[in-house]
Amino acid sequence: MEELKPRLANSAPLTPLGYLERAATVYANCTSIIYNHTTYTWSQTHLRCLRVASSISSFGINRHDVVSVLAPNIPAMYELHFAVPMAGAVLNTLNLRLDHRTISVLLRHSESKLVFVDKLSKSLIQDAISLFQPGTPIPRLVLIDGDDGDDDRTEAALPSTLSSSSPAVEFVCRYEDMVVNGDPEFQWVQPLTGWDPLVLNYTSGTTSSPKGVVHCHRGVFISTLDSLVDWSMPKRPVFLWTLPMFHGNGWTFPWGMAAVGGTNICLRKFDAPLIYRLIKAHKVTHLCGAPVVLNMLANSPAAEPLNHRVFLDVAGAPPPPTLLLRMESLGFEVTHGYGLTEAGGLVATCEWKPEWDLLPASERARLKSRQGVRTVARSRVDVVDPETGRSVERDGVTMGEVVVKGGCVMLGYLKDPAGTAKCLKEDGWFYTGDVAVVHPDGYLEIKDRSKDVIISGGENLSSVEVEWVLYTHPAINEAAVVARPDDYWGETPCAFVSLKEGIGGSKPSEKEVIEYCRARLPHFMVPKTVVFKDELPKSGTGKIQKFVLREIAKGMGSVGASRTRPQSRL
Amino acid sequence: MEELKPRLANSAPLTPLGYLERAATVYANCTSIIYNHTTYTWSQTHLRCLRVASSISSFGINRHDVVSVLAPNIPAMYELHFAVPMAGAVLNTLNLRLDHRTISVLLRHSESKLVFVDKLSKSLIQDAISLFQPGTPIPRLVLIDGDDGDDDRTEAALPSTLSSSSPAVEFVCRYEDMVVNGDPEFQWVQPLTGWDPLVLNYTSGTTSSPKGVVHCHRGVFISTLDSLVDWSMPKRPVFLWTLPMFHGNGWTFPWGMAAVGGTNICLRKFDAPLIYRLIKAHKVTHLCGAPVVLNMLANSPAAEPLNHRVFLDVAGAPPPPTLLLRMESLGFEVTHGYGLTEAGGLVATCEWKPEWDLLPASERARLKSRQGVRTVARSRVDVVDPETGRSVERDGVTMGEVVVKGGCVMLGYLKDPAGTAKCLKEDGWFYTGDVAVVHPDGYLEIKDRSKDVIISGGENLSSVEVEWVLYTHPAINEAAVVARPDDYWGETPCAFVSLKEGIGGSKPSEKEVIEYCRARLPHFMVPKTVVFKDELPKSGTGKIQKFVLREIAKGMGSVGASRTRPQSRL
Repeated sequence: MEELKPRLANSAPLTPLGYLERAATVYANCTSIIYNHTTYTWSQTHLRCLRVASSISSFGINRHDVVSVLAPNIPAMYELHFAVPMAGAVLNTLNLRLDHRTISVLLRHSESKLVFVDKLSKSLIQDAISLFQPGTPIPRLVLIDGDDGDDDRTEAALPSTLSSSSPAVEFVCRYEDMVVNGDPEFQWVQPLTGWDPLVLNYTSGTTSSPKGVVHCHRGVFISTLDSLVDWSMPKRPVFLWTLPMFHGNGWTFPWGMAAVGGTNICLRKFDAPLIYRLIKAHKVTHLCGAPVVLNMLANSPAAEPLNHRVFLDVAGAPPPPTLLLRMESLGFEVTHGYGLTEAGGLVATCEWKPEWDLLPASERARLKSRQGVRTVARSRVDVVDPETGRSVERDGVTMGEVVVKGGCVMLGYLKDPAGTAKCLKEDGWFYTGDVAVVHPDGYLEIKDRSKDVIISGGENLSSVEVEWVLYTHPAINEAAVVARPDDYWGETPCAFVSLKEGIGGSKPSEKEVIEYCRARLPHFMVPKTVVFKDELPKSGTGKIQKFVLREIAKGMGSVGASRTRPQSRL
Repeated sequence: MEELKPRLANSAPLTPLGYLERAATVYANCTSIIYNHTTYTWSQTHLRCLRVASSISSFGINRHDVVSVLAPNIPAMYELHFAVPMAGAVLNTLNLRLDHRTISVLLRHSESKLVFVDKLSKSLIQDAISLFQPGTPIPRLVLIDGDDGDDDRTEAALPSTLSSSSPAVEFVCRYEDMVVNGDPEFQWVQPLTGWDPLVLNYTSGTTSSPKGVVHCHRGVFISTLDSLVDWSMPKRPVFLWTLPMFHGNGWTFPWGMAAVGGTNICLRKFDAPLIYRLIKAHKVTHLCGAPVVLNMLANSPAAEPLNHRVFLDVAGAPPPPTLLLRMESLGFEVTHGYGLTEAGGLVATCEWKPEWDLLPASERARLKSRQGVRTVARSRVDVVDPETGRSVERDGVTMGEVVVKGGCVMLGYLKDPAGTAKCLKEDGWFYTGDVAVVHPDGYLEIKDRSKDVIISGGENLSSVEVEWVLYTHPAINEAAVVARPDDYWGETPCAFVSLKEGIGGSKPSEKEVIEYCRARLPHFMVPKTVVFKDELPKSGTGKIQKFVLREIAKGMGSVGASRTRPQSRL
């Protein structure tokens, strides 16, 4: 038995890139992409990717060079998920809503050699590049325009748009030129091993310490298959790109859609009425998004019950049960999951049990708001005491840190051996920094990011649980709870809320909101402060930026310091 | 980029065994197995497997020892797909219909340490063991009885059934004792690497050169996921075990059912009326089988159109289009694929194209009878000139050898480095020995096993194509065409056929069958000989044994030698 060793025929590197080649044969004439008036077939997408890959190669891009993309969910963004690694390079999609300072830092950190830039981000990239020190190599820039199927063709025809106002920043060519001039017979660059890097995704938008998550071909191969199995993905689904592809590579679905010959409905911008229109027009079967996306869909005036089955995968933050309830009442079949960029997408989903069908709707929503159990093939997931590494009790109460192990876990952070070692620990687990409990049935429930836990009077307090109560208030649109420093308690919960539109004179006061919470929460969990905002600050991926709110709360000082103020001010 | 290396958290061995642990959490109370009056839940199956694994370990079975099973598709057979490797051992399922001489050879070749034996195979194993030379270590035997939910409990209660007539052959215990006495808290033996052996499957029933195919954990992990994606497997399917698990481990579905929480409908014996009854009673959603299984289902008096969706995966031999047509007319949704034990199951399936829906039924069946394209994730598949290794033209005419590459390909043949090197070639491909053409649309079609190709007058002739014509004859039930030696032509096609029951006086003569073929085939492909048989010889997996027929044809001598016989004899 021992003399049987791996051989060439069974140890070819695992990679998701082959899915495209297969799609070109199997789904040749099926629609791969729809974007405005532009439509491609899988045969066309395959050839376009090969052409772009060959053009990238012809720029002298070498194996493992980083190639960045700054674009929304347009066809080029999809194609580059194949074309960049097919040239042997590492794909780095950048969050489109970062500011130019951060973009500049990330481009220098990654030593990106080539950047594909959407036409609407021209000034962003130019401003970012302008911050490069003299002598720092500047990446070449490619302008993406002209495949909108809208009026941009005219603009794109003007050669002058290629050069910018800054003489240092010029676009070397247009994306569509790379397609036209590329070689459709290009022999794409196979990875040397499955551990070769495939993507580089930055998780942090702060300029101080960019965390560049690197995933390998093998990891993405496994994650992609796992996502398909876990969602029971049929062949030829119609997938609406409401999830930014720059957010953890759209949870692996760019590669997954090639694997099952799906149709990718691309869109430039999130807009609820447009989403509803596209769902209807293209008979969309699947879409993904963070809770904020669901919230916008749920509260949109365009919201109306669906008349065909639409599967919706939600992750990125714990969704309030009320929101799940509302989405299901509109006809969406919601799956809730939990994932991280470091784990290549979703590692746990709230796998539904048939016996739950019999429960009342509110109880069903409550069960569904749990993050659930590890997916089939990606990984093992546990919740442990971070001090001892031991699994916490399955009691639904004891909090611990979520840890993950498996083929999906990142290779590490680029140029950050200390940061890598800190989370990819010697005990063989990736420590996520997320705090959760495990229920008696083995389903885990995220209570907080560890940095979001509020410690008030020695009690650990889940900001998420307070938020959920706030979300049940009829006037509240969005809510986020963070720690406010307190001389006596250490910290107290501080709630930031935005109100629903059109509620007129029924706007609640701070006191009313606090009373509302007091009736529904243990005393120590009730917010001591409520701040009303027109809108809560959000990241490019639609997550509420708690670190911004935390800074505001910190600036407010101790509640204790204001104890002398009249009670009504609290 | 280069400094990012695999770490413990992302390089844990890939193995399908974890699926069971997860099923015990996610599908705890869902039905895992139904067999007669016995029903288990996933929670029970998990504990039973752990108990059996601990009992196997307590027998002193070590990592990589071979443990064999001689049983039909009963619950124990399913459980042992997990329990044996969870004890660190290598699972070796034996074809139940082999004779005792072959079984004896295989047990000695594999150095099996422990054999689980179904109650109906007691004398088979005893006869096999009796052929062991004195001094050869004899494996321990475990008797499987008593979980039938039928009357066997009574018989099983008699301790005397444990000892056999031969004093050398005794059962050390009963399977259910291993369950009862086993430890449900057993820490199962994790593989050291994904390349650790998981299963050993013998492909050849001949005593001269047993070919023991070894697959590793990583290979089966990939194959299992791939089979689920390729068949768009939903969660909690109802899977009917018409395919023997000893046939290539039931094409990975023992592990696959744990991954998706399916219900396994077990059965001891293939019987068409029973199949139809079980499909109806349990609302079966999925089943698999070789064409011979379809043939029995299609021609059974119990055949009646289904009243719910049943997905049927057929592989193992090219199915005649007429048979596919018949199955679809009964309501089965047939997927056709191609696989080999050496490739861990199906490596190509005839992925359906939506535009084919519009074609006439006969044309659809003709297209579906092709083996198709490589599955999503398992492998690359090509058809090459075996001399040059170059891909054949996609012309639907040029024959070449099917080659496979990918994670699914076996580690090799046990104790057969020469045989391994012969098919796992230096060019990185596994050479299957199957002959196929590739059509202009990239779909491959198997024309023959290379050893079944008939070379007549220098022309390569596909026995399968001749058989398909024979299958369209209204009186013919089964047909197999092999080479008969010929002094003039080298070889000529010789057809063996069995006739349908109840055709009475309308039995065709040899001459009529030849005329029938002449009207439908090129002259050189028309059988020169037709032999009528009550039944064609079949292997345990239901494949027609061409090597038996080839021996008969060889014994008939040259057709040329009988040329002086009256023409009517031909």
